[in-house]
Amino acid sequence: MSNDTDDEAFGRAGGKITPRDRDYPKWYQDVVREAELSEPAKVVKGCMVIKPHGYAIWEKVQRGLDAMFKATGHKNAYFPLLVPQSFIHKEAEHVEGFSPELAVVTHAGGEKLEEPYVIRPTSETIIGYFFSRWIDSYRDLPLLLNQWANVMRWEKRTRLFLRTSEFLWQEGHTAHASHDEAREEVLRMLGVYGDFAEQVMAMPVVRGLKTPSEKFAGALESYCIEACMQDGKALQAGTSHDLGQNFGKAFDVKFQTVDGNLDWVWQTSWGVSTRLIGGLIMTHSDDSGLVLPPKLAPIHVVIVPIFRTDEERIGVLAAAERIGNALREIDISDERSRYRDFLEVVIDARDIRPGAKFYEWERKGVPVRVEIGPKDLAHGQVCVKMRVDTAAGKGKEFIPEQEFVTTIRTRLQNFQHELLRLAAIRRDEKTIQLDSWEVFKRTFAGEDSSFAYCHWDGSADTEARIKADTKATIRCIPLSGQGHAAEPGKCIYSGRPSPQRVLMAKAY
Amino acid sequence: MSNDTDDEAFGRAGGKITPRDRDYPKWYQDVVREAELSEPAKVVKGCMVIKPHGYAIWEKVQRGLDAMFKATGHKNAYFPLLVPQSFIHKEAEHVEGFSPELAVVTHAGGEKLEEPYVIRPTSETIIGYFFSRWIDSYRDLPLLLNQWANVMRWEKRTRLFLRTSEFLWQEGHTAHASHDEAREEVLRMLGVYGDFAEQVMAMPVVRGLKTPSEKFAGALESYCIEACMQDGKALQAGTSHDLGQNFGKAFDVKFQTVDGNLDWVWQTSWGVSTRLIGGLIMTHSDDSGLVLPPKLAPIHVVIVPIFRTDEERIGVLAAAERIGNALREIDISDERSRYRDFLEVVIDARDIRPGAKFYEWERKGVPVRVEIGPKDLAHGQVCVKMRVDTAAGKGKEFIPEQEFVTTIRTRLQNFQHELLRLAAIRRDEKTIQLDSWEVFKRTFAGEDSSFAYCHWDGSADTEARIKADTKATIRCIPLSGQGHAAEPGKCIYSGRPSPQRVLMAKAY
Repeated sequence: MSNDTDDEAFGRAGGKITPRDRDYPKWYQDVVREAELSEPAKVVKGCMVIKPHGYAIWEKVQRGLDAMFKATGHKNAYFPLLVPQSFIHKEAEHVEGFSPELAVVTHAGGEKLEEPYVIRPTSETIIGYFFSRWIDSYRDLPLLLNQWANVMRWEKRTRLFLRTSEFLWQEGHTAHASHDEAREEVLRMLGVYGDFAEQVMAMPVVRGLKTPSEKFAGALESYCIEACMQDGKALQAGTSHDLGQNFGKAFDVKFQTVDGNLDWVWQTSWGVSTRLIGGLIMTHSDDSGLVLPPKLAPIHVVIVPIFRTDEERIGVLAAAERIGNALREIDISDERSRYRDFLEVVIDARDIRPGAKFYEWERKGVPVRVEIGPKDLAHGQVCVKMRVDTAAGKGKEFIPEQEFVTTIRTRLQNFQHELLRLAAIRRDEKTIQLDSWEVFKRTFAGEDSSFAYCHWDGSADTEARIKADTKATIRCIPLSGQGHAAEPGKCIYSGRPSPQRVLMAKAY
Repeated sequence: MSNDTDDEAFGRAGGKITPRDRDYPKWYQDVVREAELSEPAKVVKGCMVIKPHGYAIWEKVQRGLDAMFKATGHKNAYFPLLVPQSFIHKEAEHVEGFSPELAVVTHAGGEKLEEPYVIRPTSETIIGYFFSRWIDSYRDLPLLLNQWANVMRWEKRTRLFLRTSEFLWQEGHTAHASHDEAREEVLRMLGVYGDFAEQVMAMPVVRGLKTPSEKFAGALESYCIEACMQDGKALQAGTSHDLGQNFGKAFDVKFQTVDGNLDWVWQTSWGVSTRLIGGLIMTHSDDSGLVLPPKLAPIHVVIVPIFRTDEERIGVLAAAERIGNALREIDISDERSRYRDFLEVVIDARDIRPGAKFYEWERKGVPVRVEIGPKDLAHGQVCVKMRVDTAAGKGKEFIPEQEFVTTIRTRLQNFQHELLRLAAIRRDEKTIQLDSWEVFKRTFAGEDSSFAYCHWDGSADTEARIKADTKATIRCIPLSGQGHAAEPGKCIYSGRPSPQRVLMAKAY
């Protein structure tokens, strides 16, 4: 038996959740631990174990995104974990950006390697090499691939899901015959990410362009989706990069054009990672623990039978089984979806107090709780409580059993929409338009942050000074229709002309 | 453009496939290349790239197995890629077995590490560590986890899918309160593997026990499924290990028993890998290329429109679209399956000769080819050809369009069964019972192999001598009902008493 008495251990749920307004980072840690989503690996620096409840969410993220990638013409493949160290050096910005974070394999099979390998921090280089082997002609283009994989970036300061040395992600890599076509792909996949965040994660995002100092090391331009956490900090939740011909040139990926000339391919890459789960937690959860949108919930309904006598027990358990079986027949996926999302129902008949059960499933983010006691049974009803009060259900509701079963699909759909609506309200409450540098500094004092739309003069120098003074950074230059209107103005810092407002915030 | 002129490159399909009887290993390589399943990474020693067509098969393997694991109560989780080097040394047999194959990370984040990490060759050690943190009491048991992951074993001689330094796999890891319960789990998962191999891969297998010299390094006992390849060699396709308390003791995974005592947990582990794809290829494929059972085929039907004039083209393409759309509505999965397996249909309207198209899709293993020409159109029929002649379809068949669509599900089911039946016949043809050492030596002369059921005296010494003399090894001691009857006899090598015949063959 382990002597480990820290509170991160499995099955030790039952600890306290620090309220958000007392200590937000501690609250986050507590929610992750109490929902049994993951824990620090400790013996492997900066890495985490993703526990079953956390991994089940990731599986649903994977399924949802994978279907969207395939619907947009991409195919999955798998490239090697190890990358020859020299490959990283072939693209000048890329090596500068990633060298400090590399994990290096120097020995293998009992021998010192002639050339070390690095564990992929991302796969542009190794995939560039294969593209050069596979692409000869415009007929081989576009080449639209995606990979689900683990990557490694040695991080000094880590936080579960948000920043870990190893993480799971998908990386799309595509090659095109023209820059226009590549740019179209970059924006298409940004759109996929935005849709997924809002429609599946119920997490509103701002779609925008990164400034040159925040872009991917090796890209011409990087686009991103940025989400507002409950503390007003921004989470970069997905990125889509226009790589131009940078990696095409570095790996000599030339193709014969329609006109019979030779040109380097135009490439894109785009990715989201297990970091999304961190965003999901900080978008919806509350002081009682995790809150999950039904589309990503590993368990949709928990049924808690309430009884005192053995006789009551028999009747109540039978009813719980009957309702559970009826619910498990219900498929909440779309008709043409590749996955049948049958309702996952837990009947919690453990021999512990109902209150302890309520508390546990609440912390794990189960959207619907059903209580059935002898009185409910007598009335042919169930007592329903949604994880969060919304227009989809508020407080305890007493509903005829049959009605509950026939309306559960709608109830969950409404709950999904409500979570998005509530998150958008919270985001809007944190969103401000600032034109005064003094107010800006106050807004970002201490650990404070907001989604601040401000004018910026477009210079890297101003950007760096704002960051140095306040720790706020330019999260993105919003695309049209995202956030505030694109009216010109004067830079909040330098007073120089600005074509449009940009989104500034502290970032995870 | 790449100057690489080797024939493994993407899109360079159209090379020749060496007949099996001329050069079996070359045939295998050719099939893998021509079906565009994978290719050697070259710049990463012993590793491979899994190309889209190969990865799509792996995705179907994953889906099928994952559903079976979940149906037997397992949950997925994710553990770190890196393992502290000292962990490998905690179990004496384990370190001896795996040390020669380890890839070692000595530097990370620009610094030399105090203790190197190894890239997981398998995860018993790191998971043992977490089990010790998570398990306190019999109430925490059984703990039934599975992980889908990449692992690394530095191999000197590699072969696509069959043996590569990095490979993809799943590894189940479970902890139990008693040895009986752990043994039950070991056999349950062996059963899952056997069922998957036969019912989904259409690959007959022998279920058996490994001899002590062939078992997993660190296990008490290892069970396996062994499949017969067309050259008579055996492929170990999956293993299920009774780890006893070996890792429980190494990582001090103690729990409080029902009686209030302390005991170490009883563990199991079990895994299958991308090697299954190698087995799939060598079970069914022929001199024309890949043959796939419908349950694992990424594309079920290819429709080739045949036309000369533009007018013919319009009518024929419209019919192809109509049939294609009707087929794509058909879901061949089981009703309660989590995954909807809508028929995948390719309409190949490329401007190349039909013969070239037939050839290409044949090599890629598409089960059903449909041709539609103006004459078929006039008769309201289609010309159907199955990838392999079986009772499910032989040669070219002319079938009324509507009938073809309504019977495709049955046709594919029958084809699936026929592939298993044909594979079983081939396996039986390679299966012999031997009692003469002279005949045994002739049977295993040169590169020859068979599935030979022979008596063995149970000694490691005899086993080693047989291997040294013939390269044949004891693949397994078949479980009852698997292969030959368990009658006693005399060892084929030593003449000493033997309780039952064992399965001997050369192995991949």
